[in-house]
Amino acid sequence: MGKRTVNIVLMGLGNVGKAFVQLLEEKAERVRQQFCLDLCLRAVFKSGGGLFSASPIRQKDVYEMSAAGLARNPLWRPGLALDTVLHEVEPGVMVECTFSDLKTGEPGLRHVRTALENGWHVVTANKGPLAVDFKGLKEIAGRTCRALRFSGAAAAALPALDVGLYSLAGTDILSMEGILNGTSNYILTRMAQGSGYSEALREAQAKGIAEPDPSLDVEGWDTAVKLLLLANAVMGLDLCLKDMKVEGIKAIPSELLSEAKKEGQALKLLGKVSRENEEFKAGVFLSVINRSHPLFGVNGTNKGVTYSTDGMGVVTVTGGKSDPCGAAAALLKDIINIYRWNKN
Amino acid sequence: MGKRTVNIVLMGLGNVGKAFVQLLEEKAERVRQQFCLDLCLRAVFKSGGGLFSASPIRQKDVYEMSAAGLARNPLWRPGLALDTVLHEVEPGVMVECTFSDLKTGEPGLRHVRTALENGWHVVTANKGPLAVDFKGLKEIAGRTCRALRFSGAAAAALPALDVGLYSLAGTDILSMEGILNGTSNYILTRMAQGSGYSEALREAQAKGIAEPDPSLDVEGWDTAVKLLLLANAVMGLDLCLKDMKVEGIKAIPSELLSEAKKEGQALKLLGKVSRENEEFKAGVFLSVINRSHPLFGVNGTNKGVTYSTDGMGVVTVTGGKSDPCGAAAALLKDIINIYRWNKN
Repeated sequence: MGKRTVNIVLMGLGNVGKAFVQLLEEKAERVRQQFCLDLCLRAVFKSGGGLFSASPIRQKDVYEMSAAGLARNPLWRPGLALDTVLHEVEPGVMVECTFSDLKTGEPGLRHVRTALENGWHVVTANKGPLAVDFKGLKEIAGRTCRALRFSGAAAAALPALDVGLYSLAGTDILSMEGILNGTSNYILTRMAQGSGYSEALREAQAKGIAEPDPSLDVEGWDTAVKLLLLANAVMGLDLCLKDMKVEGIKAIPSELLSEAKKEGQALKLLGKVSRENEEFKAGVFLSVINRSHPLFGVNGTNKGVTYSTDGMGVVTVTGGKSDPCGAAAALLKDIINIYRWNKN
Repeated sequence: MGKRTVNIVLMGLGNVGKAFVQLLEEKAERVRQQFCLDLCLRAVFKSGGGLFSASPIRQKDVYEMSAAGLARNPLWRPGLALDTVLHEVEPGVMVECTFSDLKTGEPGLRHVRTALENGWHVVTANKGPLAVDFKGLKEIAGRTCRALRFSGAAAAALPALDVGLYSLAGTDILSMEGILNGTSNYILTRMAQGSGYSEALREAQAKGIAEPDPSLDVEGWDTAVKLLLLANAVMGLDLCLKDMKVEGIKAIPSELLSEAKKEGQALKLLGKVSRENEEFKAGVFLSVINRSHPLFGVNGTNKGVTYSTDGMGVVTVTGGKSDPCGAAAALLKDIINIYRWNKN
């Protein structure tokens, strides 16, 4: 098999974007050997402009892109537009890692649409565009015959999306349940070990697990968005966040806390989709589960998803690094799988 | 997307073959709608000959194929050869469900080679050909650009192979551990609940979980073969059964039994592959694991595999029906995924 060059444009240089640049460099040789792909980072955008180069951009070029060093970086082009790069470079993969805005989806939504319309595949860790216009983006991808992959947005290193889409193909998925947010699961795990909520949250923040503003995680919205992405992609639904009942872990009813303290019980924040007759119901709920539940042992920052199917029974996937490196690995995996199967 | 006809030839009509014929019929419409594939069963072989038809063979045609009814089945052709069918029908997928002979691989090995050489994709639930000549078969598939998929042989409805091959692409897999045999796990689970070995085995046989001759399962060989298939496919190794140390559950050392009785411990039969420096070691071992192990909760006939990777951390998949219907669902899934990505 001949080696193939794949041009990559990266949008956003936060923690996941930086981890992705580093991973690309670390894995370049392995990907070349094992998959015959030569992954070439051609442009990296952050607010105000981007790096753009005719030859592959290296990790060291990017690390020099601090605010102070921008003007001195020979590859830096202030005000560089995504369109310019997409037109000048032979189409490959646009990797979207800008901030997730769940209300407008921007600026990611525009990036994803532009890339697909210009013949680029898209791999995204940004939930915003998918939460706002999943159906529309899938339609563009279908029409332009481009891949739109989003493991990095759905559950990152936990292959919940792959298992649902590919491993369960041909089955009827009757229901899906998931522990989809590492921060709230960490807090619940510490609470089961005796901590109070505030204490467990402070500890999670001190360890860098929880954000300074943890609302999205502890109020259940991060779980809700991931559930929505999985349900829409895997079960072919058309859920919106506003259709879902969403509980968080900030004010846990005392009867749930005492129920969960019993031997062989655990309190989890579960995203759930289930079918009742021909209707699907989705939401995020504080749930007490027992030892026989496949997600019972998913503790700390770990995540897990369990699918109940007609033909394959119950299939569960758990684990996967909950950090920027795990998300970067999910982006790389999606890129490899696009070219493994897509001959375009 | 236009509908596409996929011709299917089935070799073997044991429990898995029968379940596959039934599943094809049940899922025909769903597969047509969701994946635009028209799966047409064109031939079904069993010892002595086969059914062969210009129009799709239905489940009722096959159910009439009892020994008494053979001569009367209008589609039955005594002495029908696979070559004949492969030459007369436009290439699609050969589904191999004959008996797994781990020593010679036959007759499956010949079927798989013939199909690939004649331009047919192969999906197999038969471990024999892969255990005997994995490297050779992969070589033929690579040369002829045909797919050789074997979820049904590796762990069936448990997507251990998909996760390892696709979801972990780009990572380094440092080790793999699996509960890969439902029968031995069922017996160990019953023993943990107080049964003796013989009692638990008899119970498993009465329930149809264990075979009348349970040697392959309880002596660890079924686990060893599945481990070998997973390790060779996912980790790119070239293991042979004779390289592996294989323990079973027939004579469990008393110190292990008492160790496993402690609170928060469990005795499992684990297939393990791990890397020490640049060397890989593989084997099947009776192992006491504790509550924090991701396979701790895998009880009864359930199976599970856990991968330890550099970039994605620990990823575990558990569950999946351990019966002929689960294996048939894995065969169908493999067929769908061949045509989802392969444009040939």
